[in-house]
Amino acid sequence: MPAALLGSIVRCDSGPMTTSSQSTRSLDLVSAPARVAEPDEAISYEELQLAARNHGILLEALAYDITPPGLHYLLTHYDVPVVDADSWRLRIGGRVRRPIELGLPDLQAMAPTSVTVTFECAGNGRARHRPRPQSQPWLVEAVGNATWTGVPLAVLLEKAGVLDDAVDVVFTGADHGVERGVEQDYARGLTVTDASADDVLVAYLMNGQPLPPQHGFPARLVVPGWYGMAQVKWLVDIDVVAQHFDGFQQRAYSLRSAPDEAGEPLTRIEPRALLIPPGLPDFYSRQRAVRPGPVVVEGRAWSGHAPVTRVELTTDAGATWIEAQLHDTAAGPYAWRRWQAGWDAQPGDHLLSARAHDASGRSQPVDAAWNRGGFANNSVQRVRVLCLD
Amino acid sequence: MPAALLGSIVRCDSGPMTTSSQSTRSLDLVSAPARVAEPDEAISYEELQLAARNHGILLEALAYDITPPGLHYLLTHYDVPVVDADSWRLRIGGRVRRPIELGLPDLQAMAPTSVTVTFECAGNGRARHRPRPQSQPWLVEAVGNATWTGVPLAVLLEKAGVLDDAVDVVFTGADHGVERGVEQDYARGLTVTDASADDVLVAYLMNGQPLPPQHGFPARLVVPGWYGMAQVKWLVDIDVVAQHFDGFQQRAYSLRSAPDEAGEPLTRIEPRALLIPPGLPDFYSRQRAVRPGPVVVEGRAWSGHAPVTRVELTTDAGATWIEAQLHDTAAGPYAWRRWQAGWDAQPGDHLLSARAHDASGRSQPVDAAWNRGGFANNSVQRVRVLCLD
Repeated sequence: MPAALLGSIVRCDSGPMTTSSQSTRSLDLVSAPARVAEPDEAISYEELQLAARNHGILLEALAYDITPPGLHYLLTHYDVPVVDADSWRLRIGGRVRRPIELGLPDLQAMAPTSVTVTFECAGNGRARHRPRPQSQPWLVEAVGNATWTGVPLAVLLEKAGVLDDAVDVVFTGADHGVERGVEQDYARGLTVTDASADDVLVAYLMNGQPLPPQHGFPARLVVPGWYGMAQVKWLVDIDVVAQHFDGFQQRAYSLRSAPDEAGEPLTRIEPRALLIPPGLPDFYSRQRAVRPGPVVVEGRAWSGHAPVTRVELTTDAGATWIEAQLHDTAAGPYAWRRWQAGWDAQPGDHLLSARAHDASGRSQPVDAAWNRGGFANNSVQRVRVLCLD
Repeated sequence: MPAALLGSIVRCDSGPMTTSSQSTRSLDLVSAPARVAEPDEAISYEELQLAARNHGILLEALAYDITPPGLHYLLTHYDVPVVDADSWRLRIGGRVRRPIELGLPDLQAMAPTSVTVTFECAGNGRARHRPRPQSQPWLVEAVGNATWTGVPLAVLLEKAGVLDDAVDVVFTGADHGVERGVEQDYARGLTVTDASADDVLVAYLMNGQPLPPQHGFPARLVVPGWYGMAQVKWLVDIDVVAQHFDGFQQRAYSLRSAPDEAGEPLTRIEPRALLIPPGLPDFYSRQRAVRPGPVVVEGRAWSGHAPVTRVELTTDAGATWIEAQLHDTAAGPYAWRRWQAGWDAQPGDHLLSARAHDASGRSQPVDAAWNRGGFANNSVQRVRVLCLD
């Protein structure tokens, strides 16, 4: 039986085990450097394992203004920590006049603010890059829109009294693990200026309810307009520092074309439109079938740089584009906008895509540029629809 | 641009498009027969797409008695339908004396019953089968435990008055799509005897809250002990019939070794134990690291046939097994049981697995038998843990 069991690992799990006679057992044995797949290299066991853990939105849930709990995307670097709300403390220290420590009741006693924000993972679209960087293999579904309620970070920083020599604010979560050989708490920095923006929150409610464990219970950072890596979950520490913070996750989330480049740090979300695949789905292929006649195609569009101002739809693989009707922006500047466009479906195969433009002048490309981390791939979604005779 | 766009589909989406000069455009163009992957065939684009949609439990969430919303597994055959609670009706008809139609308030006005049930997808473990049947590529994570509240189905059937010639009861959901070329509403049957068991519910609350859209809002069937295919979501129709129901999903969810076999229908959940991977995870490989010394390994175990009576743990790839301590069964016979076992971790590589035994005499195999649908693969989980020096 031991032999059979061990055999099965080699067959279906992540590779042969190293022998226990290995002289030094370091974290490198479980944690390899980042790599890019060979051309046409298969999705690995590790990537499949990540896809099973990290949840995407179901595209039909783009129909809801606010993504229902359990349909919002979710990316967890390590394990979701089980945090006890009673003993949880948030510490604010470093280059401040009055270091403070808050419990959940302290946060709840302060004047609350709410903001509706579209979150998107910086790695959304990674598995559509060629060659494919090996990491969480998102296609297009790493997105969700929620209303977060909490205390403006600026209020907390004001309370603590940020000193004049402060440069960055470092946010640390209770999640702890290993990444590319480095054991770490998840930590990200923002400049004092970015951290002090009115709309940055320490949030303890998601859609009016206590945060679910997987979304950062009991409290998390919300930085509207930024990719998900800035939205530190299970927040326990806010450290004001006098130098630029250059932690692991700061370097990891950068656009670079070679591993030794300094890279350009990821910040705000690039514009993207997604459509709800119309018609009937096939279970396995997820391809769609419609019957001839008028079809209303609808979806959502967002940008972290500026409000979305235009969405276009193509139903002929990019040969022609039509203007979609954009709905109002009642949910504020950081929430996705609903859009709709009419399509007169005729028998045959059709390829549908949408693209977004924002008030900053940015437009969503048909094919975004490749980068080594597989980040910010806002290439247009491709939805194949068969119109039956 | 059109050429580039089309080029990208061929490159990164699910294959070249058929030409629109095709003479008959049938659903076969989007929906292929089931197949088994070639030996070592890569995970397909379609499988990756399914993995992104269908959510597994995060294994660390086995720590919770009741799986928090959004961490419970989720398998959707077609699209999650958007159902309006006000206009929703549940029809009970066919071989009954008094066909009835109920709205949500009618159900809510009846005496409620609650039952805590571990749900598991019949396809859990499919991607660990060799060769791999191509479908939703679950590894081990298609499970969750929730408390469902609703009206016993027996009460509704009694109200309608089942006629003497009734054989099966057919349950139809509002979800509609295409599967292996067949357009269909999702529908499953139970014998009148199975349907009349006390604990079968038409449930409208999950963990005390209205069902989330993805779990069957506003009401679903709950058949404790059975695999997920029996738990019909978005329930709209209960039809009592005088012959054995042999619908698509009845045939699809069968154990067979060749496509033309009648097969053995899947019913109750085979025993399984899962452990929470101990120590620190590596982000990409999900492999674990611990430091030398005592480690408490814990997890959950369940069986749909009978209560779990024993769980064993191995930390040496099956060479030796130790008895785990089983916690109480306060949540009832259909809820998973918590178990714990001590492990004195010593430097080196270790392979951890657990296996469950139930009161019916069934035991979880180290390697379950292959079948063409990739169902009921309760082969033991394999968790590689590196103990550092």
